[in-house]
Amino acid sequence: MAIALVENRNLMATTTLKMVKNHSVYVLPTIDRLMEIVKWTPEDLDQIVVASGPGSYTGIRIAVTTAKVLADTLGINLVTVSSLQVLAANIPPLTNEIIVPFFDARRGTVFAGQYQWQNGSLLNIQADQHLEMADLISQLSKCSASVVLVGEVTAKLTTLLADLPQGIRLMTAVRALPSAYQLALLGKAKKPVADVNTVVPRYLRRTEAEMNWLQTHPEGMDHDYVQRV
Amino acid sequence: MAIALVENRNLMATTTLKMVKNHSVYVLPTIDRLMEIVKWTPEDLDQIVVASGPGSYTGIRIAVTTAKVLADTLGINLVTVSSLQVLAANIPPLTNEIIVPFFDARRGTVFAGQYQWQNGSLLNIQADQHLEMADLISQLSKCSASVVLVGEVTAKLTTLLADLPQGIRLMTAVRALPSAYQLALLGKAKKPVADVNTVVPRYLRRTEAEMNWLQTHPEGMDHDYVQRV
Repeated sequence: MAIALVENRNLMATTTLKMVKNHSVYVLPTIDRLMEIVKWTPEDLDQIVVASGPGSYTGIRIAVTTAKVLADTLGINLVTVSSLQVLAANIPPLTNEIIVPFFDARRGTVFAGQYQWQNGSLLNIQADQHLEMADLISQLSKCSASVVLVGEVTAKLTTLLADLPQGIRLMTAVRALPSAYQLALLGKAKKPVADVNTVVPRYLRRTEAEMNWLQTHPEGMDHDYVQRV
Repeated sequence: MAIALVENRNLMATTTLKMVKNHSVYVLPTIDRLMEIVKWTPEDLDQIVVASGPGSYTGIRIAVTTAKVLADTLGINLVTVSSLQVLAANIPPLTNEIIVPFFDARRGTVFAGQYQWQNGSLLNIQADQHLEMADLISQLSKCSASVVLVGEVTAKLTTLLADLPQGIRLMTAVRALPSAYQLALLGKAKKPVADVNTVVPRYLRRTEAEMNWLQTHPEGMDHDYVQRV
């Protein structure tokens, strides 16, 4: 969970929590506490920027819901940014390597995308997707450009990442920690959403509940699960 | 002001405040709050890592004093790291450029050092020093290697950094924000200080008070100002 208060391009205050259960309990108190320290009131806010996924279902659902409620209540703009782009931006615009941010999506799968710095902008060159880590590495090993993987190596990914092919480097620890300050900066370059109410998290895969439901409701395949249910 | 709680190489929680007056007021409450969130007690702490300067007099004095009191009271190790090395480490080990972190030291001067990643370690290749920004740029323009300056461009430094010579790039914003998590990681690779009581901030220049005192006490030049006074 990461919260930042940013004015223009300047950080005012930020808190990041990890390794804590029930992140949701801390979202509003952390916003309150940071606002209090920098002496802002809700009316001082002009824009909400949220990382809308992919990532853990619960995490992005809480983040997106909180962001929508704040933007809607305060009548201000809402901007969404890919969670993977935020991670990719931890690699500074000093090289033209292909930057591949990833999040563990369990069972040997990951969420991953491909990004590249071009003229100071971090471009998405392959869409964020949900795939097997082994398939991702196989794809990347065929890249002619050099590649930097950015992400946290969870216990289950350790073996899969142990022997990376030549030309693929791995950045972890500090580089694998998404920055809410960076999120705000990326949000400044994007257009706000037209209608706050239509924003949904970018899950990029079906939930288990949804997969079970589809087995008995094949006609639902082309429709939005949440709307149908 | 940046505080992080780190276990092994994993971040637990961190808060960074900027653009706030009286940072000192927030040091202990922020530590308390983060400890409470991750459910640590002071007895859970094994080591204190502090950025001991260079930087603002008051800032590093408060940081070093707080760190010494915590380490001494809890009977645990204290490790000091250069504030400039923490900033340099914001550039990941993907290039062999010369990394030059800097902090505004007022009146057109900066604190700056030169660092370089070699085999995963961030080496100091030119000692941290206090010098004119114009002299620093002039020195760097003679470097055969390419250079990346890392630091916050304050109003007074804007003109001095407007026309950088070829081969010198500038990283600001997120890259110019020292990370307390990174500080902890750098601290893990260093030996603790032998005696907590002897640790002093690395000011790298004389205070105005000290310069005034030296004018009337020329014999003090070879001695430590604080000890003499």
